[in-house]
Amino acid sequence: MSENEHGTLPLSPTERSTVKRGAKRAVAERDALWATLDAGLVCHLSTVVDGAPLVLPTGYGRDGDTLYLHGSTGARSLRTAAEGVQVCVAVTLLDGVVYARSVFHHSMNYRSAVIHGTAVPVTDPEAKLHGLHVLTEHMAPGSWEHTRLPNPKELAATAVLALDLTEAAVKTRVGGPVDDDADVEADLCWAGVLPVRWGFAEPESAVPGRPVPEHVTRRAAAAPGR
Amino acid sequence: MSENEHGTLPLSPTERSTVKRGAKRAVAERDALWATLDAGLVCHLSTVVDGAPLVLPTGYGRDGDTLYLHGSTGARSLRTAAEGVQVCVAVTLLDGVVYARSVFHHSMNYRSAVIHGTAVPVTDPEAKLHGLHVLTEHMAPGSWEHTRLPNPKELAATAVLALDLTEAAVKTRVGGPVDDDADVEADLCWAGVLPVRWGFAEPESAVPGRPVPEHVTRRAAAAPGR
Repeated sequence: MSENEHGTLPLSPTERSTVKRGAKRAVAERDALWATLDAGLVCHLSTVVDGAPLVLPTGYGRDGDTLYLHGSTGARSLRTAAEGVQVCVAVTLLDGVVYARSVFHHSMNYRSAVIHGTAVPVTDPEAKLHGLHVLTEHMAPGSWEHTRLPNPKELAATAVLALDLTEAAVKTRVGGPVDDDADVEADLCWAGVLPVRWGFAEPESAVPGRPVPEHVTRRAAAAPGR
Repeated sequence: MSENEHGTLPLSPTERSTVKRGAKRAVAERDALWATLDAGLVCHLSTVVDGAPLVLPTGYGRDGDTLYLHGSTGARSLRTAAEGVQVCVAVTLLDGVVYARSVFHHSMNYRSAVIHGTAVPVTDPEAKLHGLHVLTEHMAPGSWEHTRLPNPKELAATAVLALDLTEAAVKTRVGGPVDDDADVEADLCWAGVLPVRWGFAEPESAVPGRPVPEHVTRRAAAAPGR
């Protein structure tokens, strides 16, 4: 619960994600950002609507430094503002609960990405189809090849938003509790980490007569996240 | 990916969470709201900072219709504005990936709670200690009794926020894909659900000489979430 070891994300009202850092650090952070985004399945998309904050969960996909968002979720303004809308997007992966010797030092292990920018509706049909491809393959790898692709009517009914990853921050907490020396010396109670794991269970078929395809069984069999 | 079966949350810029509904439905929704909040571990807290949206992950706990938030995460304004700050909070539990016969009808199964309101700093020492108790027991059930409680200095260094649950919406998607009749009849590919499961792994001890206490082993042994 203390601020020192998990604390605030490296963001502030004035500096936001732009932290002073060397080029090497920036490359490492870009890798960590991509890895965090690639490991998640749902993001939280935040906008300002009539001066009030609105946050909603939605699917996403990443292609290089572009994050594609599914426009059906969220405020109508997101889908219709041709010039784009200011957004903040967070992807969070919880890795464990940190039990400390004091309530104050209880914490969580996690990987977190926060992106600031302008989400722009993708309207060009070919670019939109590409965005949908990226979104679909992130949510359900293999589905783009396996299932019926969007027809013109479906494509028109689907909103895709693109967000540049330039202004982004990534933060991670790993490891055990960081207790005060006095509490460690007192040795009055247990402390440690309860790791959080997630993964996929057995596929539930909606087409009993048909074998589960390999792109689905492979995903189900993969080791739980991290 | 279509809007009809998972679509937008029951929120709009003008109506937000206030949906027309009967008293029975309202009670059921309150139960679902509480259950969703109680099943999650991390929320996404959204605010408006200098006119721009900001969303950050943070811990929380629920006592009746009050959601307590941990004030160390997020914008400084959240912790210092005595009169409170307008926030939107989302708790999302992903239950499965829905593979449809068409890309368009791909979807996700989930439970989602979205709360709008004013987060007010809890400053009265007794109320603050209660809020911390609720937060701690949600993150690490049993820890309040097991570990050293906050001393006055730690209590002063910790910010706790309270948010009323009155203006809240809960949404759930369950079940298999909802495909077009033509795609079902064509029977060209597999469809179904890949369930998502999460739970706890074996505790990693930071105090090797000491047995893992029962409140931790019990949690680790509990069946993975839903």
